[in-house]
Amino acid sequence: MKKLLLAIITIATISSCQCNKPSKNTIQSSNTHLQDSTVIRGFFDTALSDGKGYEWLRDLTQNIGHRLSGSPQAEQAVRWGEQVMKSQEFDSVWLQPIMVPHWVRGTKETAYFVDKNTKTNVAICALGGSVATSTKGVTAEVIELNSIKQVAEYGEKLKGKIVFFNRPFDPTLINTFHAYGGCVDQRWAGAHAVGTYGALGVIVRSMTGSIDDFPHTGSMGYQKLPLEQRVPAAAISTKASNALSAALKRNPSLKFHFQQSCKTLPDAPSFNVIGELKGSEFPDKYITVGGHLDSWDLGDGAHDDGTGVVQSLEVLRIFKANNIKPRHSIRAVLFMNEENGNRGGKRYAAAAKENNEIHVAALESDAGGHTPRGFSYDGNVDKIALFKSWKKLLSPYGLHEWEKGHAGVDIGPLKSDSIVLTGYIPDSQRYFDYHHSANDTFDKVNERELQLGTASMTSLIYLLDQHLD
Amino acid sequence: MKKLLLAIITIATISSCQCNKPSKNTIQSSNTHLQDSTVIRGFFDTALSDGKGYEWLRDLTQNIGHRLSGSPQAEQAVRWGEQVMKSQEFDSVWLQPIMVPHWVRGTKETAYFVDKNTKTNVAICALGGSVATSTKGVTAEVIELNSIKQVAEYGEKLKGKIVFFNRPFDPTLINTFHAYGGCVDQRWAGAHAVGTYGALGVIVRSMTGSIDDFPHTGSMGYQKLPLEQRVPAAAISTKASNALSAALKRNPSLKFHFQQSCKTLPDAPSFNVIGELKGSEFPDKYITVGGHLDSWDLGDGAHDDGTGVVQSLEVLRIFKANNIKPRHSIRAVLFMNEENGNRGGKRYAAAAKENNEIHVAALESDAGGHTPRGFSYDGNVDKIALFKSWKKLLSPYGLHEWEKGHAGVDIGPLKSDSIVLTGYIPDSQRYFDYHHSANDTFDKVNERELQLGTASMTSLIYLLDQHLD
Repeated sequence: MKKLLLAIITIATISSCQCNKPSKNTIQSSNTHLQDSTVIRGFFDTALSDGKGYEWLRDLTQNIGHRLSGSPQAEQAVRWGEQVMKSQEFDSVWLQPIMVPHWVRGTKETAYFVDKNTKTNVAICALGGSVATSTKGVTAEVIELNSIKQVAEYGEKLKGKIVFFNRPFDPTLINTFHAYGGCVDQRWAGAHAVGTYGALGVIVRSMTGSIDDFPHTGSMGYQKLPLEQRVPAAAISTKASNALSAALKRNPSLKFHFQQSCKTLPDAPSFNVIGELKGSEFPDKYITVGGHLDSWDLGDGAHDDGTGVVQSLEVLRIFKANNIKPRHSIRAVLFMNEENGNRGGKRYAAAAKENNEIHVAALESDAGGHTPRGFSYDGNVDKIALFKSWKKLLSPYGLHEWEKGHAGVDIGPLKSDSIVLTGYIPDSQRYFDYHHSANDTFDKVNERELQLGTASMTSLIYLLDQHLD
Repeated sequence: MKKLLLAIITIATISSCQCNKPSKNTIQSSNTHLQDSTVIRGFFDTALSDGKGYEWLRDLTQNIGHRLSGSPQAEQAVRWGEQVMKSQEFDSVWLQPIMVPHWVRGTKETAYFVDKNTKTNVAICALGGSVATSTKGVTAEVIELNSIKQVAEYGEKLKGKIVFFNRPFDPTLINTFHAYGGCVDQRWAGAHAVGTYGALGVIVRSMTGSIDDFPHTGSMGYQKLPLEQRVPAAAISTKASNALSAALKRNPSLKFHFQQSCKTLPDAPSFNVIGELKGSEFPDKYITVGGHLDSWDLGDGAHDDGTGVVQSLEVLRIFKANNIKPRHSIRAVLFMNEENGNRGGKRYAAAAKENNEIHVAALESDAGGHTPRGFSYDGNVDKIALFKSWKKLLSPYGLHEWEKGHAGVDIGPLKSDSIVLTGYIPDSQRYFDYHHSANDTFDKVNERELQLGTASMTSLIYLLDQHLD
């Protein structure tokens, strides 16, 4: 017991030294870094002890909810974002008009399969962009495939069948985004691939490594297929996928049925929401930080991408709260339509070009609100060494992974030889448990994890602002 | 849309290269490391694609539940651990007898405060080791303090009062264990400190940074106070703490009431549960990996420390599944009584001494089952450089923090000049949301996060076995 007490007192003593609280003393390489580390410590203090992002996220997700492009909720979210920016007294706040795809799910989908006389209900959702089935639904035998490549091998055998793409996440990949990348072609391109062979429909295993009963939606594309070759496409849960695959092994001629009434309406008007702090030294050069305001129409779009939205708003608020006047003009951009068209990202980049705006850097948060791991880098190769030199400033806060890689869909159209593009990397382990499903809800977000990400992003924007011209 | 497709295909292509799957090619510094990295990759593959720990944890937490030392559930957990070890055909499995403290909570505690005519109910739980109130409870005015130091300043003013220790977690500390260390003296030593001044009871703010209505228990000690100076001590939720503190500002003479019937029974017989794989080269030298089987009696002890228990069991199973014959004898030890006495840890070390066993290393997992961050090191200083050299082998799996620090309560008594002691460090952000409360339940554990920790621990035990004599 005494040793236990000693251990407790030791821990208490260690803590009273605040040895885990990175301070200006932890970084000693130069005066600049000394100053940078002090500013960064201030950002973390503000984000962790006086954060606003979590309550903003509660408001966005619980009072508005999901917000697919073209929906009334997406419109409400635009007004919400504008109002938050104005309440925080950013120097300028405006809406950038765009036209967005307007796909609607219609009535809730149904599906089942019948193996001999046993009917098994299946958790299903239409893929975004899919056509409907007839009002009676589609009923057919099933061909299970594990890759798009197999489509050509099967060829005419697919005629009159429902094609079931069932390649699972590879659980041995450490970063779950890479497991996603290894499967998502089935969702995106499955219906296009089978179209010319006379299949009647496509069902795809949900894009998650979790074995549960949530179907995960996401976008798909028919590309230039003629209308008569466009077959309905849907995702089924991983549990249902396993059950169907097992049943097909017992009875390859079982029948699967699904019904959906989704459709694509004419493009609808919408907006990117933009707030700016004016630069003191380079007011005509811009650094953008953003996430996307739209979400899929299941769950409430908390991790995808409510967290990126509130973190981006927080970056500008925390600059102000810490009396940091940026050298460049810093913009928080709440992009519309990342999920099914990227019209917001494209319009923002096109407008920048039209207006001869010089964008020196852009940061996107669209990988969930989990505990920080690092930042990805995709842009001007001359700046990589500078970017990597900041690692030591943020490693005391748990950011160790500074990697070359994809920075973000929304900021992608800004890419040029001169811009620095970077993406916030949170821990990826839980993200695809939620992504694009009814399971992506506010209660899955931890306030501290969210706000550590906020402070990390604020710090990187500060470093970009300080060290780029 | 085309660019989106391109991005998706790019991600898919990257993934098909498995660039995120660390392989033997990622480590090229030496042949030894080449071999180590291949073995480690195999451990991660097994843990992530064929893990057993999560289902073991479900069984332990949902079919047995919480398991405080001396309770029937603790006894069941001993039999459960023995049975799992035998089912995995470890070379030897045995129980090591100990006597443990046997404290029981009794009927559910109640508490409220009355501010003028308004009664506010308070979420409360007795601290482990506390005495009961009288059957009528304690009712008294409250003195709110923020530190043990203040006790002497207040002195006789505490007579007849309930002392309320309300120093909160410091949210700006990045590692939440350090915020815990900065507060836990209030819980451990509060009742001892006030005992000589005639206070009637102690209530303490729960040890968490989360603002919610879960009271968090934990051990406290009266040390050598005479029986008549031992006052009842309890934790109240952080929400209740904030409400009480606010009410005291309005009305310093409000009355607080609480009632609890906990008591300490005579010590009870129990066991450490030990399983061993015999060493091929040094069968008489030991490496221990462990967690603690006991838990507090709220929730089901999932993160504290069911996860450490199943991870330790998994280490030996994964060695066998990968046909790795250890050079040293490797033991999984499920320690009893970490929470309120550390009798298991002390007995294990004493028995090792009595039997002249040479322990070359010990690893403990008792910080939750969250995503991996690294390992702490506390032991033979000559080996620190070797220990740190392994960082590059595990950084591809997200382990970047290799730090000097506390390794674990259970393995602490093994400390000597020659042993390497190390502690598994998972991400700390969510841990104290659950710790010692009814909120520490199986559903808070993510399977991938748990199993990444399992594989990390298996890898470190392998490296210790390979590179120590």
